[in-house]
Amino acid sequence: MKVSEGEEVLLYVDERRKYLLRVEKGKYLSTDKGKVKCDEIIGLEYGSRLKLSKGEAYVLRPTVADLYRGGLRPSQVIYPKDVSYMIFYSGIGPGSKVVEAGTGSGYLTAALAHFVGDEGKVYSYDVRDDMQRNAEKNLRRLKLSHRVELKRGDVREEITEREVDAVFLDMPDPWNALKSVRVALKPSGHLSVFVPTLRQVELTYLAMGRTGFTDLRADQLILMEIRVKENATRPKNVGVMHTGYVVLGRKVQADISAPGSIEV
Amino acid sequence: MKVSEGEEVLLYVDERRKYLLRVEKGKYLSTDKGKVKCDEIIGLEYGSRLKLSKGEAYVLRPTVADLYRGGLRPSQVIYPKDVSYMIFYSGIGPGSKVVEAGTGSGYLTAALAHFVGDEGKVYSYDVRDDMQRNAEKNLRRLKLSHRVELKRGDVREEITEREVDAVFLDMPDPWNALKSVRVALKPSGHLSVFVPTLRQVELTYLAMGRTGFTDLRADQLILMEIRVKENATRPKNVGVMHTGYVVLGRKVQADISAPGSIEV
Amino acid sequence: MKVSEGEEVLLYVDERRKYLLRVEKGKYLSTDKGKVKCDEIIGLEYGSRLKLSKGEAYVLRPTVADLYRGGLRPSQVIYPKDVSYMIFYSGIGPGSKVVEAGTGSGYLTAALAHFVGDEGKVYSYDVRDDMQRNAEKNLRRLKLSHRVELKRGDVREEITEREVDAVFLDMPDPWNALKSVRVALKPSGHLSVFVPTLRQVELTYLAMGRTGFTDLRADQLILMEIRVKENATRPKNVGVMHTGYVVLGRKVQADISAPGSIEV
Amino acid sequence: MKVSEGEEVLLYVDERRKYLLRVEKGKYLSTDKGKVKCDEIIGLEYGSRLKLSKGEAYVLRPTVADLYRGGLRPSQVIYPKDVSYMIFYSGIGPGSKVVEAGTGSGYLTAALAHFVGDEGKVYSYDVRDDMQRNAEKNLRRLKLSHRVELKRGDVREEITEREVDAVFLDMPDPWNALKSVRVALKPSGHLSVFVPTLRQVELTYLAMGRTGFTDLRADQLILMEIRVKENATRPKNVGVMHTGYVVLGRKVQADISAPGSIEV
Repeated sequence: MKVSEGEEVLLYVDERRKYLLRVEKGKYLSTDKGKVKCDEIIGLEYGSRLKLSKGEAYVLRPTVADLYRGGLRPSQVIYPKDVSYMIFYSGIGPGSKVVEAGTGSGYLTAALAHFVGDEGKVYSYDVRDDMQRNAEKNLRRLKLSHRVELKRGDVREEITEREVDAVFLDMPDPWNALKSVRVALKPSGHLSVFVPTLRQVELTYLAMGRTGFTDLRADQLILMEIRVKENATRPKNVGVMHTGYVVLGRKVQADISAPGSIEV
Repeated sequence: MKVSEGEEVLLYVDERRKYLLRVEKGKYLSTDKGKVKCDEIIGLEYGSRLKLSKGEAYVLRPTVADLYRGGLRPSQVIYPKDVSYMIFYSGIGPGSKVVEAGTGSGYLTAALAHFVGDEGKVYSYDVRDDMQRNAEKNLRRLKLSHRVELKRGDVREEITEREVDAVFLDMPDPWNALKSVRVALKPSGHLSVFVPTLRQVELTYLAMGRTGFTDLRADQLILMEIRVKENATRPKNVGVMHTGYVVLGRKVQADISAPGSIEV
Repeated sequence: MKVSEGEEVLLYVDERRKYLLRVEKGKYLSTDKGKVKCDEIIGLEYGSRLKLSKGEAYVLRPTVADLYRGGLRPSQVIYPKDVSYMIFYSGIGPGSKVVEAGTGSGYLTAALAHFVGDEGKVYSYDVRDDMQRNAEKNLRRLKLSHRVELKRGDVREEITEREVDAVFLDMPDPWNALKSVRVALKPSGHLSVFVPTLRQVELTYLAMGRTGFTDLRADQLILMEIRVKENATRPKNVGVMHTGYVVLGRKVQADISAPGSIEV
Repeated sequence: MKVSEGEEVLLYVDERRKYLLRVEKGKYLSTDKGKVKCDEIIGLEYGSRLKLSKGEAYVLRPTVADLYRGGLRPSQVIYPKDVSYMIFYSGIGPGSKVVEAGTGSGYLTAALAHFVGDEGKVYSYDVRDDMQRNAEKNLRRLKLSHRVELKRGDVREEITEREVDAVFLDMPDPWNALKSVRVALKPSGHLSVFVPTLRQVELTYLAMGRTGFTDLRADQLILMEIRVKENATRPKNVGVMHTGYVVLGRKVQADISAPGSIEV
């Protein structure tokens, strides 16, 4: 498969120098290993090696995971390890109908859109317009925007979708959105929450238990990156210790006789 | 959505009592919280609560993650946290063409089949016939077997597929399969490896570096499960500390001038 | 150095079979690897190997760390990793004067008594008489009881010692003992707290900040045990994930003008 | 207790601004929170608060743990969590006789000297003269140098001490020093090793097993620092993931009939 004009490529120089680049005639990318001309990339096989003045680069086809490095990062604390874990446990796949809040930078949005495919749909809520404009731009770059409907609104007040397969929340007070979430979810549908503190875990988990969610879990994933060197392989010395916690559960028939329960 | 005869349901009693159950008329499941009759489940809404003699249970729609508890576990060391991470970084999604070895219990196979959808395909190699027969049974239970071709064979000798999007290896000596993997993979295609020891990480990673893979990573994921209790939330005291390491990379044009390089 | 009658030895059979044993004439220890007669041990050099009917054993001189396995464990959640870390940061050593609460099984007590030496002193408070009787027995076994004064009392009400080098708290509500702790501590003296939940960390740390402690830290230590095998070394699969958190600080002149501050 | 001229104090401004300072008349310390004059410190009670032009500082009595920040750090990878763990398991305390190699910056040396007290002794080997001169300076600052004998030499060739309670090794190839270590150690004496890679763990541990050490352990300690904030307490986002591994064992009668065993 060859690179055509207008495509997004991942230019890989080394571990710290990876660039998401839209290939356009006449365009240049300057790196401290040398200049890359788009004209030279067009028509190349993916995986090709380019000679730079002070090094070399590879032309790769970007994946959703690469977006993390490419421009969706700034407002993010949710990492690939968390995104992949939440998606896997949610049971979503090709054809799924999914609600998400908030849109944020659109990183989780893009991952969801990737996995639901052209038959699926992602409804992404955010109260901030500027966030959504930025996310939209990112989704268009990835040719994923047709699978996403960006909606301005507060999920604590209302989610208008019904019979949804899974809901993903990355917001400060997810416990305040549980009523709307229940109305939107299919029976047995999944809720996946990402929060940075253990206090939020507790409030979310206990509120889910009271409002008709079961199979509850709360998990923290610690990523240890390994530095490989012949006969001297070891974990990297410094790294990201903490991003946040994942809380998971499934909607079931609420037990309205239980103390403190809320019927929805 | 209602439960029909012949479907697989997840019967959730509590965190330690979850049962994957094929619903058949006249069938019973005995738990220490009481007996569950399939006849009572048929026609129920998913998410419904059943009264048992000594407790209660919920009828849930199983997901690929649930298989982990349902019967695919015995021969496995690869956990949901690893599977989801490998799949996410591989860039596969609806429509992808994927090769895997070995089939093992079929847990990773099922997860791959779930995410590639009906337009995708998973080719799963194993040298052992008995493993594949067991995996086939599991895949049929999940209605995923039409997306998978189980192949008896040794990937160190040959992978017959071409232009594959990603290869997943869960085998003791992945470095011996890199030649076949390169021939099978598309340029810029992904290789995801799971190995239990750091020695295997080193051998795999260094061999990948010599044979034309780039954007290499080696990662260890540590899962800390949280026990939530009002004002007393904390990590669980005992848990799984280690499952294995994930090694990732992408096929590029090999640098045949490099010392020790192997051209494919 | 040779084993004499009346000494405590550590009999090491394998990783899971370690026995703290008081050597007395005519006494036997039965293990599933065979019987050990004390009469055979008396007069042996430490480090000697004994033949058992189905294996072998080594006669070792026990250390404070071994107590952990030998009988002080039952009521404990505080582990060697935590004890050693708390002691190191507290700055105590030979000659130090230390207060501890609660005594519990006496494991931390014994460790403190070990490090302060014959010129130092440990004052250990507990509200429960039975705990202290048990701890006393353990301390006598280790010939450490002359360095410890066990005191029945509640440190939330009063600590009668003054000019103490460090205080160690392993109790549910350490924030309620800060007034007594301040009165007992030397200026610049250390407080080391062990608590199992993050909520307790928060309450303790914030209360310390308001009552004239500085250089505050809160830390969680995760121990990964490594299983060593030629070319197959890796972390052990299952282990203790969580014991508790350590909170550390030093007494300074309180800032009585600060809002919410308490002068002591 | 009051600050006298010539003492070392720890000046604590905030978590990132801690200074080890020798108090001398006429001396100044400039920080970005303002200037501190030694003349103002002399005669103050420890724990006192100083007003600076843009903040405040506390005058604390330094402990061995503080050295870590104060000047012994540059050449170190061994951290307080590792040092304290190694010392605790070694069983040393007041009066112990200890051998260490290499001296390095003297951080572990100082910690050992602190815990063995005036009746104990630390023999610290290093092949590099410059390291030892620097370590000597640090030990003098801490008034610990009378407890330490710095020795130029290679422990792989010879350790001249006998009947030593414990040996501590922080060197690239500890397995090459096991013969000398065995000759120096008392029966049942402890060996504590610190190495950065799992390969070194394997080589050390297996060599110890072959040369008459038992009760072997290999451990990795992961420190998660907690950032405390009201209702928002969580682990810090970025931190030190890896320093090294600790390998522990005790000298016993060697089994010279075992294959590959070395008698000493």
